[in-house]
Amino acid sequence: MNLLVIGTLAYDTVETVAGSREDALGGSAMYFSVASSLYTKPALVGVVGTDFRAEDRAMLEGKGVDCTGVEVAEGKTFRWGGRYEPDWNTRHTTFTELNVFEHFDPKVPEEVQARPFVFLANAAPAVQAKALDQLQGPSFVVADTMNLWIDIALDDLKGLLRRVDGLILNDEEARMLTGESNLIRAAQAVMGMGPRYVILKKGEHGAFIMGDDVHFALPAYPVDGVVDPTGAGDCFAGGFMGSIAEAGEVNPATLRRAMVHGTVTASFCVQGFSVEDLGGRTRTDVDARYDELLSIVTV
Amino acid sequence: MNLLVIGTLAYDTVETVAGSREDALGGSAMYFSVASSLYTKPALVGVVGTDFRAEDRAMLEGKGVDCTGVEVAEGKTFRWGGRYEPDWNTRHTTFTELNVFEHFDPKVPEEVQARPFVFLANAAPAVQAKALDQLQGPSFVVADTMNLWIDIALDDLKGLLRRVDGLILNDEEARMLTGESNLIRAAQAVMGMGPRYVILKKGEHGAFIMGDDVHFALPAYPVDGVVDPTGAGDCFAGGFMGSIAEAGEVNPATLRRAMVHGTVTASFCVQGFSVEDLGGRTRTDVDARYDELLSIVTV
Repeated sequence: MNLLVIGTLAYDTVETVAGSREDALGGSAMYFSVASSLYTKPALVGVVGTDFRAEDRAMLEGKGVDCTGVEVAEGKTFRWGGRYEPDWNTRHTTFTELNVFEHFDPKVPEEVQARPFVFLANAAPAVQAKALDQLQGPSFVVADTMNLWIDIALDDLKGLLRRVDGLILNDEEARMLTGESNLIRAAQAVMGMGPRYVILKKGEHGAFIMGDDVHFALPAYPVDGVVDPTGAGDCFAGGFMGSIAEAGEVNPATLRRAMVHGTVTASFCVQGFSVEDLGGRTRTDVDARYDELLSIVTV
Repeated sequence: MNLLVIGTLAYDTVETVAGSREDALGGSAMYFSVASSLYTKPALVGVVGTDFRAEDRAMLEGKGVDCTGVEVAEGKTFRWGGRYEPDWNTRHTTFTELNVFEHFDPKVPEEVQARPFVFLANAAPAVQAKALDQLQGPSFVVADTMNLWIDIALDDLKGLLRRVDGLILNDEEARMLTGESNLIRAAQAVMGMGPRYVILKKGEHGAFIMGDDVHFALPAYPVDGVVDPTGAGDCFAGGFMGSIAEAGEVNPATLRRAMVHGTVTASFCVQGFSVEDLGGRTRTDVDARYDELLSIVTV
């Protein structure tokens, strides 16, 4: 009961070589919530339209996700369409309909404003800052971002970076934000912008975390049957923050274990569309894969 | 005294954002020899021209490399020129002069034909097979290859793969050889072609080994000042095979440690042109970086 996430809920229309889905439940904060619910009971703040399906809200609540902060606004839920090339690394956005998310003004319910562990899922940095303004002394705030904001809202993003403890981003975003092609240097440059910790995700190549007191790297869990990569980064963040929230404190040991939890949680996500695979997983599944991944990286 | 490598010695002209070198000592088997000399005393089989510098041969012999099998042929030493883009991932070959290597007919000296651990460095698969024909019951033969041979000598390469214990290749080559974009599947497909072990290198993203009895993955050692990536793959192979040769046997534990040794040995290589950095390193340097890399991947 100590984790909070602010971000999007969406309906996604996705096409990959493994198949396709229309209006499947998506959104960064939704993926994060389902992922982190394997470790703790997160509170979710976001906005949906009046078309948001009762069964989707029920699924989230069934996993212990506190949906008090999910506002229902007049209009349609945010919709996104994407298509992946067979190499999985190239994603084409086929459409984006912001709908009710266009004027999203996050309202963090009073009961969850004092939660210590907070994830600001991908949104305009100004919106992330608005959510941050409402919190009561959080102890560990991690933000996500994307190339769009680096491109069109860099000053806002830099302002936000001075206020958060960690930034989670992928290799392409890190290079774009810092102008450094070497990822170690890029991570160091991001730390120079404010965050104590940088979590750098490299998709199928794994992830690493850098901070003053920690440097830990990990290959991805070897998934040989990827179905849909959508949401993998958010599920990584959900596993990471869920693990930290469960541990109840931030130190090198909990951060390292959180990186492993993030990695294995994301590995379930990519095995299905939406949360079709991840949503059916239990802590036993996570723990088995945690041990398996450690066996792969242990000399 | 149990390791043998067959491959090229060359003079390279290289340009990177960090600087340039003209006619610097290079070649796959040269890099491999210097790298593996940190662990054992390898025997080197290859060919050079009459222009091969006495100081270069003396440097190799000074490191304990047995150069009895380095034939001096009438003509010039193999020369290669390359230029790296600032992103390091794009390499342009500016020229290739095969010179004496064009008609390379490997002659493995009788005294080293029975060495148990053998590396067939990158060369035409038919040439690699000719070297293999001369060996007396090697116990562990690992081959390297490149996209050129996958393209123009695929049948020869497939024939070779049925005769070796391991293949070491990079991600691009693995995808090209197997048609699988997923690297786990690609490695499995390579195993289906014959080798018991596949060592898949991913540059800055690390490497993994797959086999019936082992699956081990590792991120790269974090180098923040790359100078020249030329030879990194051969130095990985040299550290890997040197470590195996030092251990004297192939089993999951020695293979895992060999992956770590390969990784850290390659990390010194990229810090300088030619073997300018690696050549000055000692076992103490390797061991320190070995421990440091393990600390980065240990939970």
